[in-house]
Amino acid sequence: MALCCYASASAQQQDEKIIKSISDEILMNGTAYDNLRYLCKKIGPRLSGSANAANAIAATVKMLKQAGADTVYLQPCMVTHWERGSKEVAFAYLPGNQKRHLNICALGNTVATALAGVKAQVVEVKSMEALHELGIAGLKNKIVFINIPMDPRYIETFIAYSESGIGRRSGPAQAAKYGAKAVIVRSLASNIDQFPHTGATQYNDSFPKIAAVAVSTADAEWLSAQLVKYPATEIFLKTNCKLFADKPSFNVIGEMWGTEMPEQIVSVGGHLDSWDLAEGAQDDGAGCVQSIEIIRCFKKLNLRPKRTIRAVLFMNEENGSKGGIAYAHHAEITKEQHIFALESDAGGFTPRGFSLQMNESQVAKVKSWAPLFYKYGVYHFVEGHAGSDVGHLRKLGTALAGLMPDSQRYFDLHHAANDVFEAVSKRELLLGAINMAAMVWLVSEYGL
Amino acid sequence: MALCCYASASAQQQDEKIIKSISDEILMNGTAYDNLRYLCKKIGPRLSGSANAANAIAATVKMLKQAGADTVYLQPCMVTHWERGSKEVAFAYLPGNQKRHLNICALGNTVATALAGVKAQVVEVKSMEALHELGIAGLKNKIVFINIPMDPRYIETFIAYSESGIGRRSGPAQAAKYGAKAVIVRSLASNIDQFPHTGATQYNDSFPKIAAVAVSTADAEWLSAQLVKYPATEIFLKTNCKLFADKPSFNVIGEMWGTEMPEQIVSVGGHLDSWDLAEGAQDDGAGCVQSIEIIRCFKKLNLRPKRTIRAVLFMNEENGSKGGIAYAHHAEITKEQHIFALESDAGGFTPRGFSLQMNESQVAKVKSWAPLFYKYGVYHFVEGHAGSDVGHLRKLGTALAGLMPDSQRYFDLHHAANDVFEAVSKRELLLGAINMAAMVWLVSEYGL
Repeated sequence: MALCCYASASAQQQDEKIIKSISDEILMNGTAYDNLRYLCKKIGPRLSGSANAANAIAATVKMLKQAGADTVYLQPCMVTHWERGSKEVAFAYLPGNQKRHLNICALGNTVATALAGVKAQVVEVKSMEALHELGIAGLKNKIVFINIPMDPRYIETFIAYSESGIGRRSGPAQAAKYGAKAVIVRSLASNIDQFPHTGATQYNDSFPKIAAVAVSTADAEWLSAQLVKYPATEIFLKTNCKLFADKPSFNVIGEMWGTEMPEQIVSVGGHLDSWDLAEGAQDDGAGCVQSIEIIRCFKKLNLRPKRTIRAVLFMNEENGSKGGIAYAHHAEITKEQHIFALESDAGGFTPRGFSLQMNESQVAKVKSWAPLFYKYGVYHFVEGHAGSDVGHLRKLGTALAGLMPDSQRYFDLHHAANDVFEAVSKRELLLGAINMAAMVWLVSEYGL
Repeated sequence: MALCCYASASAQQQDEKIIKSISDEILMNGTAYDNLRYLCKKIGPRLSGSANAANAIAATVKMLKQAGADTVYLQPCMVTHWERGSKEVAFAYLPGNQKRHLNICALGNTVATALAGVKAQVVEVKSMEALHELGIAGLKNKIVFINIPMDPRYIETFIAYSESGIGRRSGPAQAAKYGAKAVIVRSLASNIDQFPHTGATQYNDSFPKIAAVAVSTADAEWLSAQLVKYPATEIFLKTNCKLFADKPSFNVIGEMWGTEMPEQIVSVGGHLDSWDLAEGAQDDGAGCVQSIEIIRCFKKLNLRPKRTIRAVLFMNEENGSKGGIAYAHHAEITKEQHIFALESDAGGFTPRGFSLQMNESQVAKVKSWAPLFYKYGVYHFVEGHAGSDVGHLRKLGTALAGLMPDSQRYFDLHHAANDVFEAVSKRELLLGAINMAAMVWLVSEYGL
């Protein structure tokens, strides 16, 4: 296949050889899986501002040093500090004075219910349009149950997530506008099970802040059926979460200095924070350990990049994005030259492609390298969103890309307690690191 | 993208529309996952000749009828009948009169040890060349430990399986030639854990038949390290398996009759038998329920194929291939016109491509359809082996193809007790069925 941007066939052959050596090294000696086990099993959930998040910072500093980074340092940032408090409680009242427990969890950054909890009749809506139609007359003093399943027909599950996610993202604020007492959102999950999936919601300062929870998809199905039979069903909810003042924390950075243009920076990263309910294995321990793996592999193979490569483990992606904001802000005020930033925040599944957020000529250049990736399973080079952490660099003109892993299993466990180390395949994780390393290497060699 | 073989752009648009309707139907209403749960959890392991295999035949007949096949019938075949007997035992003798248990299982179709078991010094070989070098002098009266790991550097794990598999396939026969008492083969697995992976081995009638087992990869690593420290380590082995006379069984077949050329047959299938250690979820319950799903989907959408479509659930793939042989034999003697046969026997993982075993012009025709598959994640159309069941049709000139799912996780569980329903992703399984259905539809419309 033609590689239009190559100066010569021998350059192409040389790159093929280097990428093969990267692949062999990572598949034979990669430490990403062991590092992920440590993050998941020895540290565990690491929500911004928590003691675990601080432990994860210390642990990944050590990992980056062991990987052989030329320098490892912490970049300060203030982060959102929200705590779930003790386990939430919810039940539905059944006819005959019986109660049925519901599997729920508070949405991130939400306020708690009153100490005594909240009890009210529940009203189901299946779209945001239906919510607006009911308005004050239908929702005042009610608990609103927003039941918008992910549409299974999208092959790419992120599209379904984005579409159905409107209920979680803005449902609580909109229900509050109409006087609702609380909101229950169907978990954004592609399967039916009993895990509630958390995630951030965004209040609107013009309306009251009301408690908001996610309910498992299995219980959402049950509740919906129940409401057909007993439309007057009441629910009791109690959440115990609290948003505190922002707290100091850090992004973790490890660098390999460029040999020819060290001032030009190629960033590659994931986010170190995770939701408090899970080990954050796929979201996004995977992206962190893959980024560290690139440094380890280059060092081991004595591959010295022309440009500086930075592994960046962003803090606070889940409920504030303040690590990403701080990284871009620091780049801006220090006038660093960020030529490219790659993010892995869609899970450590088999990689399928890259989502490119850059100008037309840069897209063409990246696509000219595509044949180098085919034998490593990556063939899909499309324009699109790169990632929420690196996204803040876009205003500096940085070319961005996001790794696109296979998306079929991601929303079975995203933001839920089953996002654990065991849900990650070692080979899939390493294959992602290989393709990320190849992309980082090519950009560091040829620029964009 | 150009579709060279299309008569018109409108034909292409029509096919895109049909495939989209197939995809939507399967993702919304597919029953393959529920059928797989039944096969795995209500029936379980179903080795040829077992009561479970008979139950699986009855259950899938029912599934095919419920799917709406025009006819469902059983095709008789004689199958290999091997039984493991009671659980095998193995331990290594440690210095100081201690014993360490080893996780092993007998290889398929092997003979048992003597009733009292076998005890001997163990000799490790890391290649078949090393085994031949040791010869009689090194192996006589020994237990041979064939420790050939799967090479992690192959991106496509089936290549590593095929390469390292020589130890399991022919190691026991070759060791017997040199007077070995028994053979322990490192499990063909891509990960390190405590599950032994079984699989068939092939004795050579010129040499004695000796007991042969697989040991878990974790215990293989332990044993190898142990032998460095204590080269005189002895092992005790006892297996209780037995090969009986062949037994009558059946392939299960469900048909949708073609509307225009019903005499031309398009087969699509997987194998219904599984090893006795596992639920046979990925190997190959997946291929069976996917094949049934195609019939269900076409029926539901009222898609009437021009040619006859047959879902074929082959018996005895694992330790005899006698279902596949009987199917081809029946086709030959009845002079059926088998124009195409597709097999899904590489797991119900996200589909990535098709392996085409057909002549050049047929390959070109299939490749001309490739763009119809891209949005369903399938882009890889290569010439290669289609599958061991449909393979027997090749001598009749039938064009063959094999679904190529993502192969990264397959050998973590292939032929081992962790090949269970829970290891299958519903969306991945259904996505395989969608691409199989699309291929079957296109061939039934246009021929090859």
